[in-house]
Amino acid sequence: MTSAKVIRVAMLGCGVVGTEVARLLREQSDDLAARIGAPVELAGIAVRRPNRHRAVPAELLTTDSAALVESDVDVVIEVIGGIEPARGLLLTALNAGKSVVTANKALLAECGHELYAAADSSGADIYFEAAVAGAIPLLRPLRESLAGDRITKLIGIVNGTTNHILSAMSATGAGYTEALEEAGRLGYAEADPTADVDGFDAAAKAAILASLAFHTRVTAADVYREGIAAVTAADIAAARVIGRTVKLLAICERVTGADGSRAVVARVHPAMIPDDHPLASVGGAFNAVFVEADAAGQLMLYGQGAGGAPTASAVLGDLVAVARNRIAGGHGPRESAYANLPAMPMGQAVTRYHISLDVADRAGVLAKVAAVFAEHDVSIATVRQEGLDGDASLVIVTHEATDEALRSTVDKVAGLPMVRDVASVMRVEGDP
Amino acid sequence: MTSAKVIRVAMLGCGVVGTEVARLLREQSDDLAARIGAPVELAGIAVRRPNRHRAVPAELLTTDSAALVESDVDVVIEVIGGIEPARGLLLTALNAGKSVVTANKALLAECGHELYAAADSSGADIYFEAAVAGAIPLLRPLRESLAGDRITKLIGIVNGTTNHILSAMSATGAGYTEALEEAGRLGYAEADPTADVDGFDAAAKAAILASLAFHTRVTAADVYREGIAAVTAADIAAARVIGRTVKLLAICERVTGADGSRAVVARVHPAMIPDDHPLASVGGAFNAVFVEADAAGQLMLYGQGAGGAPTASAVLGDLVAVARNRIAGGHGPRESAYANLPAMPMGQAVTRYHISLDVADRAGVLAKVAAVFAEHDVSIATVRQEGLDGDASLVIVTHEATDEALRSTVDKVAGLPMVRDVASVMRVEGDP
Repeated sequence: MTSAKVIRVAMLGCGVVGTEVARLLREQSDDLAARIGAPVELAGIAVRRPNRHRAVPAELLTTDSAALVESDVDVVIEVIGGIEPARGLLLTALNAGKSVVTANKALLAECGHELYAAADSSGADIYFEAAVAGAIPLLRPLRESLAGDRITKLIGIVNGTTNHILSAMSATGAGYTEALEEAGRLGYAEADPTADVDGFDAAAKAAILASLAFHTRVTAADVYREGIAAVTAADIAAARVIGRTVKLLAICERVTGADGSRAVVARVHPAMIPDDHPLASVGGAFNAVFVEADAAGQLMLYGQGAGGAPTASAVLGDLVAVARNRIAGGHGPRESAYANLPAMPMGQAVTRYHISLDVADRAGVLAKVAAVFAEHDVSIATVRQEGLDGDASLVIVTHEATDEALRSTVDKVAGLPMVRDVASVMRVEGDP
Repeated sequence: MTSAKVIRVAMLGCGVVGTEVARLLREQSDDLAARIGAPVELAGIAVRRPNRHRAVPAELLTTDSAALVESDVDVVIEVIGGIEPARGLLLTALNAGKSVVTANKALLAECGHELYAAADSSGADIYFEAAVAGAIPLLRPLRESLAGDRITKLIGIVNGTTNHILSAMSATGAGYTEALEEAGRLGYAEADPTADVDGFDAAAKAAILASLAFHTRVTAADVYREGIAAVTAADIAAARVIGRTVKLLAICERVTGADGSRAVVARVHPAMIPDDHPLASVGGAFNAVFVEADAAGQLMLYGQGAGGAPTASAVLGDLVAVARNRIAGGHGPRESAYANLPAMPMGQAVTRYHISLDVADRAGVLAKVAAVFAEHDVSIATVRQEGLDGDASLVIVTHEATDEALRSTVDKVAGLPMVRDVASVMRVEGDP
């Protein structure tokens, strides 16, 4: 049953993802019409340099994005990225009652509330499955499938570039700089890799995931962030010795403080996870998110986290949803921020550390080091000491403590006279 | 923002899942109200023997399910299972414009169309995430997230009982009967395990998955079905030798026939999959579904496939969805069967076989066996022969051929005079 209505779509931007969206809209138009109940028409594509887009019909291209958004369209797909001009254009669209499908994680993580509010006031929809983990159905499961459950924790590998670099370091023993250069040569890292390697990309995604999972407004500024630039070959080797793998994780937790109050912790940092954890074998450009919920238990969603076609798949799934809502009436989920939990600072978050020390191989060293841990109320889970020609290596994995206490402990230990070097310090995650 | 409307819910059945649904509705009522925008009230629970349900408030219990469905409720949750009386009660509800949330795979696989039609004619919703793979967000991703993509193949481990038995056989070397008895003692298998071990449960789920993935009406009768009763310790050992694991798989494919026509193959049978396939490590009561789509590439969705709380999580997610639709207007996805592809008989489906033969260890045996394969146009991928005291074992893995040709080949080979025994025959799946 196809209605007389035609769904007219404007697209802002036409890079790798936009080109795939335009192709799929053309090639699958019959299927899309059957699934939506109305044909979809691509009304125009706003780009900066029309002569650079040979893969899409020239008559669709325009440089006037504002006029395209204001024209007679039902849906605006945004694949430009960045805050402006995307923000202004999408607010114009939403205020005019046009539904929006966007892949823009930075915009969502920074200005999500503003976009939701505009959608809500005009009755339009905003969908953004493509903003996190490409083709993996992730935001819809969080917003809808798990809407009757209580999510307690998410651990995700949500950045393909850093996952590729860490996988390569692990496979070849290369250092960070070498692995980054190689990733650049292979096209896995951008010319300016800052957003990826410093964790900004993963932090924006963590903010979006935490917001949806915990019904709380979380912005990128609330997310603790450490990138992978400080990860060394020694860290990777140290992880291997204890049966672990180094991954850049985005972790979102609903925690209960010492006083019983609830809070959200969102953090992005490298961590050592057990080799038999389902996330440990997520290699290269794949993404995966591990979810723990009260009733559902453990879930994992796995797939391609980036790339033109996978991201376009997510964009088109959202397009079908907003178009169906246009035909059937009703609208998709609104912002859900009723829980309004505070963000807990990283220092108060509870973590575990792995610490590998080069120490003088003589009696009493372990006692001195252990005393520092005790002094900071940090309990030691395992310790392994190996002597080697007068030097010794001391590898400690702690029990849970506040991140603050763990950091202070490491600082104090590093200053002990018998500690020659701190070879590796990294958080450990993913234990049952 | 909470509307004045109260969403009144009737529940049919109160077994393991229903008890958890009732508990979560009570414990999470504030969260559910905030997420839906209206409070949810459990109006009544229809059961056969009210005195057996101590965990739910006695005043909610009734034996008159028909009267409960006809009372002033907005949503009917069905967790009875089986065809009747569930079918009649849900048709009454849907025809009266009441939305339905059901966990009933058998009913969906057999009478899905009838339920959809009733929902469509009255404007009500029917949601059934809990019917397949418990808490794993699976049907919503297929129906919605991937609605703009073309799914080509699904491979799922969707039955926890058989997965537990096969995992146990693999771990302990036990035979099927012994492992089944042990599963029964541990509560992983029902007193009458037929529905699980003979593949009926998985076949119903395969029908539902194929229907959604391929926009085609597929019923349980269209699904080729082999259970695990014929799986032997020798099969498991033979799989191990070639780096594979035996799993009961539900496989749904969109295939192109020799004449270019499209069709759907849905099949449930044990198969050997490579040890490094993501499904190989899905153990015990966990379920997982591996999805391949044109644009999205490979996805995997993993989690607990059964149990009270996980299944209740899926039921409540659907409840939030239908309740939101009641508040916001609009409705969820309708039946999508426009593609209307024919079901391809198993004989014409393309598969690969592993065959392990005990043969006389003398010259010319391999030539004779290979001639039978050639005669049936079945190409051999790998062959391994090992002599042992006058006997030899011949292990063959084929390339792809029609299932019919592969079966005929095995039958003919089994009749050769130098073949003493067919030690193991099983399909192989999951290769790149």
